[in-house]
Amino acid sequence: MSYSVIAITREFGSGGRTIGKKLAEELGYEFYDYDLVQKIAKESGFAESFIEEYGEDASSGGLFSFMSNWGSNISDQLYIAQRKIIIELAEKGNCVIVGRCADYILRDRDDVLNVFVHANMEYKKKRIVELYGETAESPEKRIIDKDKRRKAYYRYFTDRAWGEAKYYHICLDTSLLGLEKSTEIIKNLVKE
Amino acid sequence: MSYSVIAITREFGSGGRTIGKKLAEELGYEFYDYDLVQKIAKESGFAESFIEEYGEDASSGGLFSFMSNWGSNISDQLYIAQRKIIIELAEKGNCVIVGRCADYILRDRDDVLNVFVHANMEYKKKRIVELYGETAESPEKRIIDKDKRRKAYYRYFTDRAWGEAKYYHICLDTSLLGLEKSTEIIKNLVKE
Repeated sequence: MSYSVIAITREFGSGGRTIGKKLAEELGYEFYDYDLVQKIAKESGFAESFIEEYGEDASSGGLFSFMSNWGSNISDQLYIAQRKIIIELAEKGNCVIVGRCADYILRDRDDVLNVFVHANMEYKKKRIVELYGETAESPEKRIIDKDKRRKAYYRYFTDRAWGEAKYYHICLDTSLLGLEKSTEIIKNLVKE
Repeated sequence: MSYSVIAITREFGSGGRTIGKKLAEELGYEFYDYDLVQKIAKESGFAESFIEEYGEDASSGGLFSFMSNWGSNISDQLYIAQRKIIIELAEKGNCVIVGRCADYILRDRDDVLNVFVHANMEYKKKRIVELYGETAESPEKRIIDKDKRRKAYYRYFTDRAWGEAKYYHICLDTSLLGLEKSTEIIKNLVKE
């Protein structure tokens, strides 16, 4: 069995995106990150900044007051546009897709390796401060809020609980394994 | 970091017990399975057959009608006896413990590697028929019922959702990886 798509779901700060990028480099796969946002923008007509902010979180501010406006046409339209692009990219193959419910969207394909990446709070706090700097909000609050929104988004569009082990071929704790070792474990699964 | 205890939580039929046994052999660790039942029997005064049946499932028949009698003294007493033994075994170290909420009971130790083992339904059905034979109930129903009871037991004593990736250092799908490869991945983590 070889996997032509790797779908990575990750906790904020766990390093899932970094692992995805490294994996793509080492496997010679496409890494869809900013490219994916651009493609979705083109398909949907939404601004790139809008997609970055609302494309995988049930964000609480502005347009998407979660409790009142969720389920609105706009969030559904964005999801539909994302879904279409993700299906097309999987069809092309040899790619790594991070987040955006790709695991769920591609659930009927048997060439998708589904990975969940998580870490303990200390590790994630340290990492987000290094990567994104300090803000008025504590790192812990930022992590909890971000993942809460990702969970809500995921639940709304997939009706699944985010981070349940049974939906992934492998789940890794990067605070134990580190990013390099985690990448290696996943790469070995893809190559075998 | 080296791990002197490996706590394996597993779906019924996924092969978690087999992996645990193999790991123990290869690492020269104790494998606590029937031995554990005997120790708990000695500690608690409960019969071994009783512990095997009620020591990690919220079993629906007989003494433990889940909705009506759960929370009874007997289930709590058995849990307390199991907990004590598991803590003692972890203190001795170099062991593999399968099930019985060991991951939760030992959550404050930093020398415990927590593993969750799961598999797709086809794989588990095939495996339980090979291992335990056919019964009047379909393999699928046996698997679903068994895991439902394990989940309920785990939830009652730990207040955690069973199988959430964040509680484990690594979660593996044996229907993808196979038992040998899964064992090897875990062994490498312990040895590193």
